[in-house]
Amino acid sequence: MLSKAKIKFVKSLQIKKYRKQEQLFVVEGAKSIRELLNSTFGVVMIIGVRDFLKSLDIPAGVETFEVTVAELEPLGSFQSNDSALALAGMKANEFIRAERHEFALMLDDIRDPGNLGTMIRTADWFGIRKVIASDESADFYNPKVITASMGSFTRVAVYYTSLLEYLRKADCKVFGTYLDGEDVHKTDFRDGGLILIGNEAKGISTSLEPFITDRITIPRLGGGESLNAAVAAAIICDNLRRR
Amino acid sequence: MLSKAKIKFVKSLQIKKYRKQEQLFVVEGAKSIRELLNSTFGVVMIIGVRDFLKSLDIPAGVETFEVTVAELEPLGSFQSNDSALALAGMKANEFIRAERHEFALMLDDIRDPGNLGTMIRTADWFGIRKVIASDESADFYNPKVITASMGSFTRVAVYYTSLLEYLRKADCKVFGTYLDGEDVHKTDFRDGGLILIGNEAKGISTSLEPFITDRITIPRLGGGESLNAAVAAAIICDNLRRR
Repeated sequence: MLSKAKIKFVKSLQIKKYRKQEQLFVVEGAKSIRELLNSTFGVVMIIGVRDFLKSLDIPAGVETFEVTVAELEPLGSFQSNDSALALAGMKANEFIRAERHEFALMLDDIRDPGNLGTMIRTADWFGIRKVIASDESADFYNPKVITASMGSFTRVAVYYTSLLEYLRKADCKVFGTYLDGEDVHKTDFRDGGLILIGNEAKGISTSLEPFITDRITIPRLGGGESLNAAVAAAIICDNLRRR
Repeated sequence: MLSKAKIKFVKSLQIKKYRKQEQLFVVEGAKSIRELLNSTFGVVMIIGVRDFLKSLDIPAGVETFEVTVAELEPLGSFQSNDSALALAGMKANEFIRAERHEFALMLDDIRDPGNLGTMIRTADWFGIRKVIASDESADFYNPKVITASMGSFTRVAVYYTSLLEYLRKADCKVFGTYLDGEDVHKTDFRDGGLILIGNEAKGISTSLEPFITDRITIPRLGGGESLNAAVAAAIICDNLRRR
């Protein structure tokens, strides 16, 4: 049984303010928790059903609580959860740079947590482990981001910063997606660089435009005015990895 | 002012059972409503704020109600809506086939409405106007699908059916995404065909496997076990349109 205070504490971590204060975040579901335990994140607590807990190799020092599904589900954001919920320590916001011939995603106010999580999952698939996000982007530790990343949050690092400040000092190519850029099928990606993805509604901030070295476009053959931001990022990732 | 009965009626259309009964669905937000009015859907009602209603060219016979933002927002699923909400008539579930050299998306139990809406938006961008979905897939007329499609619901048709029955009669290529298929960068897409996208958690049903003529794979260079279904569909669409 969990105490009322513990339940309240776990639930409070759904909110950014309390995550920041406690420097802890929530991971839900079997797949994500297995990946978490295989990662460099420090796990502090696992609350789960007996069979699932038994299946894990839990390091010493991790507080463990056995609960029923009925006790587990209201603790997190999942509609259903028959395995567990874990608390882990947040990492410091460490500076990231794309080395020569390397790629990093750069996110200009991606507000939707599902989009951010999906982009982290996609970046991981394509071997891109570095993401630079504007301070206004969705929070990496939002439970929806963690869940949508499908475990990739353990392999991809996100650095939050002012993109304007960052780009002033950057010394690499910056690819930005526009409606009137060069065909992404023909873009020369050999030098690596930053792949700048614009906000879901407003696109790339005009203040960042002077730093873009390569305007690129995903060719449109039909209707619609735009693609979903996570979809556009994925198509660019597939193109830049093409041999 | 809207009557209580009208408010209740509009709200009831968030639920599939009532949409089916009334053969009506809800469209929210300025962009989607403008696209709706330019489409072949029959609009029956628009509830909106004065300035937005004034900006529209509303055909005769459409019931129009002027409301405040405070009255408008609780009617729909949007967190904020400062323009309007419309009701339109559903279309019949009409048979669709991919003609020779044409493509259609085929969705095997895509359950997430956001994924379905994003796929409709992506298909539209790439000039694919036909989608065949299993009966268990998310409902085309779900407000989240309509919203995520960003107006593309007016240009892309979805036919719901048993995929097993459909594929038994199909006479075209069927491309299915697997982890061990042919590199999608090298696939010959010249003949057109059906692009089969599997369920978010389970992938493609084993019962459909015998009908797949081409197993394809999006090359992975990093970690993770899979891509988001809407992301995978988008990357395939970009590849099949490549010259």
